Amino acid sequence: MADPKFFTNAGPFSLQQIAECAGCALPSGASPDHMISDVAPLDQADSAALSFLDNVKYKVQFQETEAGACFVTKGMADFAPKATIALITDNPHKAYALAAQMFYPPIERLTQISDQAHISSSAKIGKGAYIEAGVHIGDHVQIGQNCIIEANTVIRENVQIGEYARIGSSATISHAIIGAYVRIYPGVRIGQDGFGFAIDPAGHVKVPQLGRVIIEDHVEIGANTCIDRGAGPDTLIGQGTWIDNLVQIGHNVKIGKGCVIVAQVGIAGSTALEDYVVAAGQVGIAGHLTIGTGAKIAAQSGVTRDIPAGEEHMGYPSMPIKQFLRQHVTLKSLINKGKNT
Amino acid sequence: MADPKFFTNAGPFSLQQIAECAGCALPSGASPDHMISDVAPLDQADSAALSFLDNVKYKVQFQETEAGACFVTKGMADFAPKATIALITDNPHKAYALAAQMFYPPIERLTQISDQAHISSSAKIGKGAYIEAGVHIGDHVQIGQNCIIEANTVIRENVQIGEYARIGSSATISHAIIGAYVRIYPGVRIGQDGFGFAIDPAGHVKVPQLGRVIIEDHVEIGANTCIDRGAGPDTLIGQGTWIDNLVQIGHNVKIGKGCVIVAQVGIAGSTALEDYVVAAGQVGIAGHLTIGTGAKIAAQSGVTRDIPAGEEHMGYPSMPIKQFLRQHVTLKSLINKGKNT
Amino acid sequence: MADPKFFTNAGPFSLQQIAECAGCALPSGASPDHMISDVAPLDQADSAALSFLDNVKYKVQFQETEAGACFVTKGMADFAPKATIALITDNPHKAYALAAQMFYPPIERLTQISDQAHISSSAKIGKGAYIEAGVHIGDHVQIGQNCIIEANTVIRENVQIGEYARIGSSATISHAIIGAYVRIYPGVRIGQDGFGFAIDPAGHVKVPQLGRVIIEDHVEIGANTCIDRGAGPDTLIGQGTWIDNLVQIGHNVKIGKGCVIVAQVGIAGSTALEDYVVAAGQVGIAGHLTIGTGAKIAAQSGVTRDIPAGEEHMGYPSMPIKQFLRQHVTLKSLINKGKNT
Repeated sequence: MADPKFFTNAGPFSLQQIAECAGCALPSGASPDHMISDVAPLDQADSAALSFLDNVKYKVQFQETEAGACFVTKGMADFAPKATIALITDNPHKAYALAAQMFYPPIERLTQISDQAHISSSAKIGKGAYIEAGVHIGDHVQIGQNCIIEANTVIRENVQIGEYARIGSSATISHAIIGAYVRIYPGVRIGQDGFGFAIDPAGHVKVPQLGRVIIEDHVEIGANTCIDRGAGPDTLIGQGTWIDNLVQIGHNVKIGKGCVIVAQVGIAGSTALEDYVVAAGQVGIAGHLTIGTGAKIAAQSGVTRDIPAGEEHMGYPSMPIKQFLRQHVTLKSLINKGKNT
Repeated sequence: MADPKFFTNAGPFSLQQIAECAGCALPSGASPDHMISDVAPLDQADSAALSFLDNVKYKVQFQETEAGACFVTKGMADFAPKATIALITDNPHKAYALAAQMFYPPIERLTQISDQAHISSSAKIGKGAYIEAGVHIGDHVQIGQNCIIEANTVIRENVQIGEYARIGSSATISHAIIGAYVRIYPGVRIGQDGFGFAIDPAGHVKVPQLGRVIIEDHVEIGANTCIDRGAGPDTLIGQGTWIDNLVQIGHNVKIGKGCVIVAQVGIAGSTALEDYVVAAGQVGIAGHLTIGTGAKIAAQSGVTRDIPAGEEHMGYPSMPIKQFLRQHVTLKSLINKGKNT
Repeated sequence: MADPKFFTNAGPFSLQQIAECAGCALPSGASPDHMISDVAPLDQADSAALSFLDNVKYKVQFQETEAGACFVTKGMADFAPKATIALITDNPHKAYALAAQMFYPPIERLTQISDQAHISSSAKIGKGAYIEAGVHIGDHVQIGQNCIIEANTVIRENVQIGEYARIGSSATISHAIIGAYVRIYPGVRIGQDGFGFAIDPAGHVKVPQLGRVIIEDHVEIGANTCIDRGAGPDTLIGQGTWIDNLVQIGHNVKIGKGCVIVAQVGIAGSTALEDYVVAAGQVGIAGHLTIGTGAKIAAQSGVTRDIPAGEEHMGYPSMPIKQFLRQHVTLKSLINKGKNT
């Protein structure tokens, strides 16, 4: 049960409304008018709540749940308790996401521009903007319609931001062109100088960083993440890519569409990720590499070579995951041999 | 000698006062009225200063120290220079900590609420609060007595903070219930959305994050660390846990009492750490795991399985530390064999 | 071509001016008065642009470039296209850096102190300072001439900052003495308490952190990086060292001159790096170690022992790089043997 101090429930909704929202059919026998009042995890849901099972690890919780209804795959539906209506879908997590968005739509902010924000007279602010106190908006900045910019964030000269973007507190944005529906979390740093200099014992010499950061629509960027601007080319984040907290993205990096970059990943300069790449937590990717479409990189791997499209890699340095696991097994058997002799 | 520009020394104190504060006995022959004027590291201490030896690595510095008095374990006391009074204790580091707190108590801030802070009229601020300019405090926030909230920090609607909490500059806190005596360092991000979405090539679908962050009493949270709120369950940090800088704590993570989480650790969603777990620097812990009470994880380890209580693990993927070291030795001997053949 | 919305080109300049600025000779036959209007990457440069080739990986781009002139090493000059003037230098990257600085000098800020900055009456601000709104400057702070301090940054009491320092937005600085020409990026945290406490099941006991952070001239510190102050000794960053984003530097760490610390590196307490050490991305260095002059540490390595001057190390735990590579090869051959039997 979401704490009503922090979350406002737009429900209840009928099973019919939920099935339509989630794009799944109602099971035979279920009443379309059966009302569901909330969403909840399996172990907290009661008979008025909707839940989901996505991870086999939680099968026992599913078998014991008191949820009134639950999104599950066809293969797991038979394990549902009698009192739980199984809503069958290929993607229970997505179905739940859509239904939960219906119950808990994003908070709306009333149009309001604080008179304690510092906004250049040459900036253009779209209709419906919500801008809090302490925000700085530089000369010639363009902010699209219906943006939310929270307290103490700094947007420097000539930056462009598309409509319906939401920018959290205490972020810093410069040298950037940002699309629509982008979400930037608190403390994000976008557009600062890349780490570019010529090494010299007499004193390293800065290379002026002359590119920008281009962020396409529907990108999400987690708290305290840093995205440096390009050195000459731009740094690019493709449409619909999700980036977690504390990620480092170096200058000239190109990230394709729909990628998933988990917390504390570091991507060195001039590396390209094609579309739908998944880099799990704390992965490091060296510079000047290409990671092919749909490649998956296991957590903490250190990538030092190109990865072909569709491959899964793991290790330090990273290798195809089957090779990594063979190596792991080989080592174990060697140690056992050592103990026996 | 601490720089008096930055630190105010409340001393001198007598050996008697120091021994009482640290909970140790005076050695026979030492005068209780002997005055000590400061604390200092072994290699900087003079005859009026108190120091400590906690790490055998610094034994030589101990033998050469000019400190007037020094906390040591019984086993090391005999190596003290003649002019140094050895104050014997089982835990020299703790004894020093207590004595140093007596010499350098935390800075007090006079009660003061800046008229350039942005405080909702519905917020409740306890007596004795110190709130600097540029701070934002949202609707219905509750701040306990004697809290310090430094410049440009943002506390969003309905957050609760216990008494004597200290919150550094430019932090952001939302969807959180925070205990007493909690210290939050500059740039910390608490309560933002977890990294929760259903993966979909047509565009990942956000899962509303409907939990909170619960932080119990006496927790310390280092600079620029991020703690996401729960997806449905809460994210929880147990009493007396210390978290270093740049740590990532995912949604639904439960951390027990008295844990130590060193810098740049990442803990993925829904993992539970029981009490007194130590995770050294840059450790990564995968999601949905349980790390047992008192487990210790060596720096940079990648944890992919549950760790039983009390075990020490290391490696990538992590394993019991003895197994890791055997693996390391086996590899070395194989390489040597290879060279010989 | 740098986007003129974000960058102002001070050119064109003649080949003569460029060669003088970069410290290289003009090739025979090249006209000193030949004008160059911009700098650009190899694959974007046109006949009026200057580029450089520094990484053999981009040899093909060099052979196909349309750049009017290009810095290259002697060995690569013969691969230049006919229409490209090869400017031969031992260090093309440095030559390019110097020329690019001539084309794109750092942005100047007009002297201006915002009346919405919060500046203590006891602070001393040098001539030519540029201080934006929302900045906090505490009692007795000293700021040198011609410093830039961007919006919402907090500088606490008694901090000293040398001339021509540039401090980005939303940074926090306390207990620090900072040299001239230092650049601090947005969100940097300097001078907070180190992670110092005595472990105790009844509640960890804080050790007062009584040192400072000393930052010498010409240091660069990347976005959201954290540098804790010393516990007793100071934390020290030597002259001309460059630190990237999201780096963690623990208390008492000493870093020498001209070091390069890449993104997401973590250096634990009391470790010393001598001069010109390079630590690549995500390296972790344990506490109380010494890393010798000119040592190089490969990305993601975990350093648990001292490294002698000039050595290259890699691995977890780290070892001389040759040993690491032999280990890697040995493992591969063992796996292949396993497959054959």
